[in-house]
Amino acid sequence: MNVNLFRSAVHVAAICGLYLSTAMVIPALIDLHFGHRDWTVFVFSGLMTGGLSLGAALATSGSPPPFNKRFGFILVNILWLSFSLIGALPIYLSSLNLSFAQALFEAVSAITTTGGTVITGLDRAPPGILLWRSMLCWFGGIGIVALGLFILPFLHVGGIAFFKMESSDTNDRPFAKLGSFIRAFIAIYILLTVVCTVAYDLAGMTHFDALNHAMSTVATAGFSTHDASFAYFDSTAMLWISSIFLTLCSLPFSVLILFAVRGRLDTLRDPQIIVFLGYLTAFSLAVAAYHHVRNAVPFGDALTHAVFNMASILSTGGFASEDYTLWGPFVVVIAFFATFIGGCSGSTAGGIKAYRLIILFNMFRTGLRRLIYPNGVFSIRYGNIIVDDDMQRAVMLYLVAFLALWVAGSLVLAALGYDVVTSISAVATSLANVGPGIGPTIGPAGNFSTLSAPALHMLSLLMLLGRVEILTVLVLAMPTFWRN
Amino acid sequence: MNVNLFRSAVHVAAICGLYLSTAMVIPALIDLHFGHRDWTVFVFSGLMTGGLSLGAALATSGSPPPFNKRFGFILVNILWLSFSLIGALPIYLSSLNLSFAQALFEAVSAITTTGGTVITGLDRAPPGILLWRSMLCWFGGIGIVALGLFILPFLHVGGIAFFKMESSDTNDRPFAKLGSFIRAFIAIYILLTVVCTVAYDLAGMTHFDALNHAMSTVATAGFSTHDASFAYFDSTAMLWISSIFLTLCSLPFSVLILFAVRGRLDTLRDPQIIVFLGYLTAFSLAVAAYHHVRNAVPFGDALTHAVFNMASILSTGGFASEDYTLWGPFVVVIAFFATFIGGCSGSTAGGIKAYRLIILFNMFRTGLRRLIYPNGVFSIRYGNIIVDDDMQRAVMLYLVAFLALWVAGSLVLAALGYDVVTSISAVATSLANVGPGIGPTIGPAGNFSTLSAPALHMLSLLMLLGRVEILTVLVLAMPTFWRN
Repeated sequence: MNVNLFRSAVHVAAICGLYLSTAMVIPALIDLHFGHRDWTVFVFSGLMTGGLSLGAALATSGSPPPFNKRFGFILVNILWLSFSLIGALPIYLSSLNLSFAQALFEAVSAITTTGGTVITGLDRAPPGILLWRSMLCWFGGIGIVALGLFILPFLHVGGIAFFKMESSDTNDRPFAKLGSFIRAFIAIYILLTVVCTVAYDLAGMTHFDALNHAMSTVATAGFSTHDASFAYFDSTAMLWISSIFLTLCSLPFSVLILFAVRGRLDTLRDPQIIVFLGYLTAFSLAVAAYHHVRNAVPFGDALTHAVFNMASILSTGGFASEDYTLWGPFVVVIAFFATFIGGCSGSTAGGIKAYRLIILFNMFRTGLRRLIYPNGVFSIRYGNIIVDDDMQRAVMLYLVAFLALWVAGSLVLAALGYDVVTSISAVATSLANVGPGIGPTIGPAGNFSTLSAPALHMLSLLMLLGRVEILTVLVLAMPTFWRN
Repeated sequence: MNVNLFRSAVHVAAICGLYLSTAMVIPALIDLHFGHRDWTVFVFSGLMTGGLSLGAALATSGSPPPFNKRFGFILVNILWLSFSLIGALPIYLSSLNLSFAQALFEAVSAITTTGGTVITGLDRAPPGILLWRSMLCWFGGIGIVALGLFILPFLHVGGIAFFKMESSDTNDRPFAKLGSFIRAFIAIYILLTVVCTVAYDLAGMTHFDALNHAMSTVATAGFSTHDASFAYFDSTAMLWISSIFLTLCSLPFSVLILFAVRGRLDTLRDPQIIVFLGYLTAFSLAVAAYHHVRNAVPFGDALTHAVFNMASILSTGGFASEDYTLWGPFVVVIAFFATFIGGCSGSTAGGIKAYRLIILFNMFRTGLRRLIYPNGVFSIRYGNIIVDDDMQRAVMLYLVAFLALWVAGSLVLAALGYDVVTSISAVATSLANVGPGIGPTIGPAGNFSTLSAPALHMLSLLMLLGRVEILTVLVLAMPTFWRN
């Protein structure tokens, strides 16, 4: 039985892989347009991965099994893994002369919309590769939203099922059908990308920079086409544009669509939106005030940079406008913990996420009440839905898994010779798909280029684990999973 | 009704305070014996706190309320708070010229058996104060074991009720009565202290040093009478003696008593003992191997120091034989995470504790199984008992509270100007009642003497919170608690 599931999962992944391979024509054309010889890399890679995908698709064709949980788990794992490998090939073969570990890290970082990079000299990098990285982020963003809204809730791993949230609203469901919802989502995702591109363009970026940064922004990935990230542009307008789009794309897309269609603000009343905007505002104001007082920076400037860099971390984007770790220890510690937190479920943001924090807080408050009234009847709510035992357990499982991986990963990095701040922040930023860490090596002023191959492989694995909410991978390690 | 509970709690605390005040006669005699003028400090402090305690005891006398949970929560809080204040007075008035924040920190550090110190120049400190610190640790140790075995399980906050563990063993209960159990516990606690004193003495310490270090060892506190801690003695024998007693006193005292009385090794089959000894061994061997390879230290020496320093952290003792943070980043990271873990429930050790890790692991494994078989029936076990919902909830509550306090406390320290490593490790070491942190300021080679008053006050609060398993204090913040 498992063989059949496996075959079908490979089949679906191969078909998706074929699309991704075909998409390599776009960076090939861009390299041709800019006269860069790397266009051949994309043609070769596209033909090779396309051929392999086609072969795999043909070899595994057959009637699909009924969609069940096991299939869901296997499919999600195979999809992310195959996309990472296909995405890595042109990066590996390009004129950047990256090692395989580096190329794979870069592709995984893109497809998981993390945004940590191993490339130094982005300003002179082949345009095809820059666009390819942005495309991988952008596709990854679609994958994440689809995963978070439709697949993970079904697997009981994470997220809040869109239809569950909306089930109280039976008379007024514009997206009762999955297909129309997916079309609406892709439309709004494209719309956001276009508007963001135009905004960056108007603020002074080149068309190419605007497009790349927009794709990377709506995917909350954080790749830039310049080593200095947003500091290269030195534009307050761009920082605010980016802050706004990073924040928008950290909100659940289901809610954005409902808002776009119905045009009523009450659709934004999802508790996680309020909490996410709450801590984003609180963190930004705290950092701005501290930066203003400690470093005598005018409050306006302090606020712009604080909002941008906090939005960048909390949306798990990972752009940087300055090395904020030089602003003082308070900013370092706030950035460190902000790395874990993340945005909303059903968005492109990663991390522990606002809805889990809300459920944890409500579980905690109810738990304390139960200590006083052991026989009291308490229900844990999330907005107007009751958080059942499955959902509570999923939140706890995720938290424990996240912490256990953080500890284990940090020990491995430290054993490989990295200092304590680099080790614990590299693992956190990878698991939460943020991008930059803390410290001189991988902080906002550095990147992952100096890390050894074993370190890069482990961080790539952690990015993938974090992206599919960890448990999706860990269940595969249970012998129970493979038993009939 | 709450007024009556409060009155009774103050009454019990005042009577205990009277005993503690009376105990000040011992350091007074020691100072007299060594000819130090601080004997007057103890006489004055003893009379003052004794008088206040007597007055409070008389003013609050009356029929005791039936023992219930509310009373338990209030009593634990008042007891720890009053002992800290009484303990701090002679330290504040002594010739050490400490600020009130420093004296309170020192007393709280002692009574919570944490062992972080603000005193530099221990080698020349008044003998009375040194003994007083050791006595506070030692009394604190008794308090913790009593709390962990009898009160916290009743409050459903933490620990595994001794009688619950033993309930399957009805024919063969030597301690069916609480009174006889407490007598046996005090006897074995005194016995361990005496044997440890003699061992230190035979290994070459002065009588005074041996007694102080023994009291501090069995309480897993970590206070030394020398600034250099165990490095002062430069004795392998002492390191092994200390390692053995720290490890013994991190085991549940209920099990130690059963072992002493029955003399059968199968009484040691508590799962938390196996797990605690397991990770102590694993951490020690890993650190020893790393230290041996990286720093070319002979394996025997590396093992001695690795076992001693890991036993010291995991037992939440906090002695140091060397600045192990100079051994390399792997040791720093392992020491950092070891700070959180702690020893066994029902011992003098603090931290998250082995039994919680076991329950978390079993919850996690069962949770993953449930993702695959949502309708399966799974029970979570701890040894041969089933972990009910209350116990699972208590473990999660504690973990969430620990993490939330760690984040909040770290942000406060960073805002006060301390670097990221100092901030996050100071809060962790205080909450887990370990003692030393990481970094040049509060690491094994430093102490807490340079910290500002607000920082010391916050860390004192965190030590107290950690010592009573956090939730015991947090329930008091619930409005529900104060309602009838």
